[in-house]
Amino acid sequence: MTEMADPGFESRLLVLEQRLRLLEDHNAIMRLMYSYGPSVDSGLAGVVGGLWTEDGVYDVDTGRMDGRGEIESMVRTHPHQGFIQQGCGHIMSPAHITVEGDTAVAVCHTQLILRQLDGNGYQVSRVTANRWELKRTPDGWRVTTRTSRILDGQEESRAILASAFRHA
Amino acid sequence: MTEMADPGFESRLLVLEQRLRLLEDHNAIMRLMYSYGPSVDSGLAGVVGGLWTEDGVYDVDTGRMDGRGEIESMVRTHPHQGFIQQGCGHIMSPAHITVEGDTAVAVCHTQLILRQLDGNGYQVSRVTANRWELKRTPDGWRVTTRTSRILDGQEESRAILASAFRHA
Amino acid sequence: MTEMADPGFESRLLVLEQRLRLLEDHNAIMRLMYSYGPSVDSGLAGVVGGLWTEDGVYDVDTGRMDGRGEIESMVRTHPHQGFIQQGCGHIMSPAHITVEGDTAVAVCHTQLILRQLDGNGYQVSRVTANRWELKRTPDGWRVTTRTSRILDGQEESRAILASAFRHA
Repeated sequence: MTEMADPGFESRLLVLEQRLRLLEDHNAIMRLMYSYGPSVDSGLAGVVGGLWTEDGVYDVDTGRMDGRGEIESMVRTHPHQGFIQQGCGHIMSPAHITVEGDTAVAVCHTQLILRQLDGNGYQVSRVTANRWELKRTPDGWRVTTRTSRILDGQEESRAILASAFRHA
Repeated sequence: MTEMADPGFESRLLVLEQRLRLLEDHNAIMRLMYSYGPSVDSGLAGVVGGLWTEDGVYDVDTGRMDGRGEIESMVRTHPHQGFIQQGCGHIMSPAHITVEGDTAVAVCHTQLILRQLDGNGYQVSRVTANRWELKRTPDGWRVTTRTSRILDGQEESRAILASAFRHA
Repeated sequence: MTEMADPGFESRLLVLEQRLRLLEDHNAIMRLMYSYGPSVDSGLAGVVGGLWTEDGVYDVDTGRMDGRGEIESMVRTHPHQGFIQQGCGHIMSPAHITVEGDTAVAVCHTQLILRQLDGNGYQVSRVTANRWELKRTPDGWRVTTRTSRILDGQEESRAILASAFRHA
């Protein structure tokens, strides 16, 4: 017969499991977000689309994409395919991630950097404010809505970055 | 009466709790540091100031700020407000963080990227070496001193980055 | 005499230890990778070399370095020393890391950003695709091979980024 162990162990194990799960969530969300640049710059449309839920939204000032199909189509067509041919980097800053249960919000900057055709290095073409809304699904964390607006002085872009600190 | 459990469990739980706490410290410091760019680019002076301790220092080659009040004032005034209106990104590289007990040191690069007024994309205005000194407070990790020097070939900037590897 | 505790505790502890170790591996690999920029830009040849195994490879389109000696020599000589004097930032994007047991693969972008000699800010000189292969050694995680190719439209660079998603 198994002896009952110190009940304090049970609660300490539960706390450890919960704390660990939160860190695993952060790690999983980092892996998901930091897949975007490498997959979009190598043209892996299916990988890019798969970062979102089936009906996920990628809402950019240059156009709104509803659902994986439209996101994958963006990767497969112009102007994106032209950027890849020219030489491009979709570069993300390290994200500020907040997990609350089964949803999460992250904000970060992204840059679109394009090779200059005159051979004179690269040009930072766009610097963008991003808000990612994510949720836990049976297949892991996925993006439900990513909203991106160019940082050109408009209030809307600042509001995207500020939204991470609503409760601050 | 509660039975005593295997004393090995007690020590394994203690080790797990310590190892987990170190990872939580890293995660908390990442969240703190990666708040800087989004909050400074959206002009949230209080959030920016709150990353530091009340008497924290932000020592930049362009001026030294002593205490939250001076840091918040930087966010609220020129030239910073002009950068926001023009369109700017304060973009951080992922940081190399070292935690030792209740203090931590991190080094990273930051860039100030400004929208060009001629409509020709963005210009990398500054690339800077950063050393962050942090401490654990009752409210969580906070910055005690951040030292930033432009990477223009001067020895001082290289020393800032090298300082992370003093014991290497 | 020590009582046997609930055998469920033993398995829960084992699972916690394994999950924690995976997160510690991710954290250690981030610390290793995010050492590169700060150490190479401050000219710490020994620290840079020490990121690799003794016979590690750094395979760049501009030249292949075999072993720590050749990597350290790159840091100590031109053109790298010239970049440092001019003012440079080797800036990494946050990496997508995959750990499998005692090996790991990471992909990320890197930028070489150089101060312009006309005083007009900085120029993004190169944007590069990177694949890092790492292994666990008695001294911690080390790089066995890092492969870097400029993103100029060539298939090889896209393949480097795509390699992280081979099993996706």
